[in-house]
Amino acid sequence: MKTILETINCTNKKVTISIKKTDQILEAVKAALREPQKFLPLHEPSIGDLEKQFVNDCIESTFVSSVGKYVDRFEEEIAKYTGAKRAVAVVNGTAALHISLLLAGVKQNEEVLVPGLTFVATANAVSYCGAVPHFVDAEEDSLGIDPSKLDDYLASISEFAGGCCINKDTGRKISALVPVHIFGHPCKIDEILEVTNKYKLEMVEDAAESLGSFHKGKHTGTLGKLGAISFNGNKIITTGGGGVILTNDETLADYAKYLTTTAKVLHKWEYVHDRVGYNYRMPNLNAALGCAQLNRLPELLRSKRDLFGKYQEQISPIDGLRLLSEPPNCSSNYWLQTIILDEANLALRDEILAILNDAGLMSRPAWTGTHKLKPFKDCPRMKMTTTGSLEKRIINLPSSSFLNR
Amino acid sequence: MKTILETINCTNKKVTISIKKTDQILEAVKAALREPQKFLPLHEPSIGDLEKQFVNDCIESTFVSSVGKYVDRFEEEIAKYTGAKRAVAVVNGTAALHISLLLAGVKQNEEVLVPGLTFVATANAVSYCGAVPHFVDAEEDSLGIDPSKLDDYLASISEFAGGCCINKDTGRKISALVPVHIFGHPCKIDEILEVTNKYKLEMVEDAAESLGSFHKGKHTGTLGKLGAISFNGNKIITTGGGGVILTNDETLADYAKYLTTTAKVLHKWEYVHDRVGYNYRMPNLNAALGCAQLNRLPELLRSKRDLFGKYQEQISPIDGLRLLSEPPNCSSNYWLQTIILDEANLALRDEILAILNDAGLMSRPAWTGTHKLKPFKDCPRMKMTTTGSLEKRIINLPSSSFLNR
Repeated sequence: MKTILETINCTNKKVTISIKKTDQILEAVKAALREPQKFLPLHEPSIGDLEKQFVNDCIESTFVSSVGKYVDRFEEEIAKYTGAKRAVAVVNGTAALHISLLLAGVKQNEEVLVPGLTFVATANAVSYCGAVPHFVDAEEDSLGIDPSKLDDYLASISEFAGGCCINKDTGRKISALVPVHIFGHPCKIDEILEVTNKYKLEMVEDAAESLGSFHKGKHTGTLGKLGAISFNGNKIITTGGGGVILTNDETLADYAKYLTTTAKVLHKWEYVHDRVGYNYRMPNLNAALGCAQLNRLPELLRSKRDLFGKYQEQISPIDGLRLLSEPPNCSSNYWLQTIILDEANLALRDEILAILNDAGLMSRPAWTGTHKLKPFKDCPRMKMTTTGSLEKRIINLPSSSFLNR
Repeated sequence: MKTILETINCTNKKVTISIKKTDQILEAVKAALREPQKFLPLHEPSIGDLEKQFVNDCIESTFVSSVGKYVDRFEEEIAKYTGAKRAVAVVNGTAALHISLLLAGVKQNEEVLVPGLTFVATANAVSYCGAVPHFVDAEEDSLGIDPSKLDDYLASISEFAGGCCINKDTGRKISALVPVHIFGHPCKIDEILEVTNKYKLEMVEDAAESLGSFHKGKHTGTLGKLGAISFNGNKIITTGGGGVILTNDETLADYAKYLTTTAKVLHKWEYVHDRVGYNYRMPNLNAALGCAQLNRLPELLRSKRDLFGKYQEQISPIDGLRLLSEPPNCSSNYWLQTIILDEANLALRDEILAILNDAGLMSRPAWTGTHKLKPFKDCPRMKMTTTGSLEKRIINLPSSSFLNR
C-alpha cells in the first residue's frame, strides 16, 4: 500500500499526501484494535458480575436512595485510593465542582480562572456560584493551563488590594483557579500552584477525567484545596451518574456533606436547614455500582495503558502528528486516547474524523473552546492562541478498555 | 382501660387526659399496623423482583448512564400515567422544580410565591434561579396554599405595571406561584388558579409528594404550566434519586431536555452549548428501577389507601385530633399518613412523637416553616398564622406500603 501511494505521489503530490495520511491513520487505528470491524463507541463502560452482585444486594436491602452502606463504603474507598483525607460522593462531577468552588470561598461577582479547552461543566460550575469564568490559555504538552503565560498575564492585568488579587480591568476579585487534567493527563500542577500561591488564589482541581492519574505519586484532585472527580458513563469508571469531592480538610469535607444534603441540621426528626443547600447526594444504588467499578480500576488502568501502547506502536511511524502521552513524573489514566495533528496538518482533521466515524470507529474533535460559547463570549480572557490552535488539531480515538488487540 | 382512666380522671383531670390521649394514640397506631412490634421507618421503599430484573438488564446492556432505553421508557410511562403531554426525567425533584421555574420564565430578583409549610427544596429551587421566595399561608383542609388569603394579600400588596404583578413594597416583579400538594393531598388548585390568572402569575406545581394523586381526575403536576415530581427514596415510588418535569407544552419539554443535558446543541460529534445548562439528566440505571417501580404503583396506591382506612378506623374515635384525608373531588396517594391535633392539644405533640418513636414507630412533626429558616428569614411573607399553628399540630405516622394489618 505504501509503495502504491508513493508512486501516485509523483503525479499529484498534494492530494495524495492527504489521502495517504487519512488512510494511514485509519489503518493504524484499525491495526491497534482487537475488533476494528465492530462499531466502537468513543468510550463505553466495562461492567462485570461484581457490579450486578453489589447492585442486587443494594436492591434487596431496599436502601437504594439517600442512605446506605455503599455510599459510605464508596467514599472510604475513593479516599483510600486517591490518598485524600476525605471523599464526599455526589450526584455528578458538575455538582462536585460547584460545591468545591463554594467551599473554596468563591462568591458572587468574583472571577475564577478556568481553561478554555475543557468541557463546558468547568465554566458552568463557576456560573452556578454567580461568579464569572475568566479564561486562560493552554499549553501544548499536557493540554492543561499554561503556567508561564498565566503568570505573565496576571502580572499585567491584576493588582493586589486588601490581600486579594483584583482584575484591574473589571475591578472584580479573582478568587480561584480551576486547572483541568485534560483527557486524564495531569497538567503542570507544580508550576500552576506557584502561580496560585503568588497571586493568593485558591486552587480547585477539576479532576473529572482523571481518576487513576497521579502527579509525582499524588493523585490528581488532591493537590489543591478541593478536587472534583466525575463518574459519568463515559469516564474510566461509572456510577451511572456521579461525582466525588476530594479534600484533605476534615472541616471542609463535613461542610461538603452538609451542603450537598440540603444543609440540614442533624436532628432525629426536626427539619431545620440553616442555609440554601443542594440536593446533590449520590444515591446508594449508584454507589453500589461504583464500589464494584472501583474494584476493577487497576485492571482498567492496565488495559487503557496497553491500548495507548498499541495505538502508539501503530501511529508513531506516521509523521505530522503525535499521540498524547503521559507527562514526565506522571502516571495518566489514559482516559481518552488523543491524536494531536501538527499545525501543518490541521486541515485534515475533519477528513480524519469523517473516515474514522464512517468506519464505525467513533472519534471526535476537542470541545469547542468554552470561551467561544455564547454564554461566555463576553467573559474576560487572555489571548487564547494555543487553545485556538489545539482545538483544530485534536482527535479523540475509541478509548474504551479492552479494545486493544 | 377506658374505664380505669376515666376513674383516675376524677382525681387529677389534667394529667390524666394527657396520659390517656398519648397512650390512646399509641394503641390506635399499633392496632392499625400488621407488625407494630418491629421498628417501622416513616416511609421505606417497596421493591420486588421486577426491579432486579430491569436493573440487571440495564447493567448487562452497559448503558447505565446518560443514554438508554429505560430513560425514554420511564418518560413515556410517566407521561401516560399522569396524562401530561411530556415528561422529562431528571436527577431529583429539586432539579425538576429548578428547571420548571426557569422555563416558566422566573428571572433573577423576581419574587415567587411559595408556601411556608413545605420541604425546604421549594424555596431552594427559587433561590437557584436568583429569585426571592415570597411566603404565603396555608389552609387547614388540605394544608396547601390558602387561595382566599392569597387573593386578599395580593390585592393589598401588589399592583399591575407593564402587565406584570409588582410587589409595591419591594418593587420586584412577582412572576410565579408554586403550590405544593402536601403529603400527597391535592391543594385547592382551582381556586389557586383563579388567583394566578387574576394576577398574571405563572403556576409551577410542586408535585414532589403527589405521584398518584388526582384533582378532579387530572393528575397533580399537570394543572399549571409545568410540574415537578420526586422519586427520592422516601416517596411512593423511587428511582434511588430522581425527578420528572411534567408539561403539556412540547416546546417547553424539548427545552427542558436541552437545559437538563448541559444545553448541548445536537450534533454528531461537536460540543457546542449555547447557554448555561445543567447536568441534571437521570441515569438509565435509575430509570430502570423507576420503570419497575411504576409498574407496581397501582398496587402501592391501594395499599396506602388501605393503611389510611386502618388508621382512620383506630384513630377517628379519639377526640381532639383528626387524620388528614383526601380533599373533595380528589384522589390522594396518601403518601404520608398525618395526624392533625386540635389547637387545644398542640402541647401534646412532642409527647406523642416521643412515645411513638420510643415504641419504634417512626413519626415526625411537620417541617419547620421554611419562612422561619435562616436563609429565608428576611424574605417577604404574609401573616403566616395557619402555617404557624399547623406546624405545631402535625404528626406524620409510619406510612410505608404494606404496613396495614
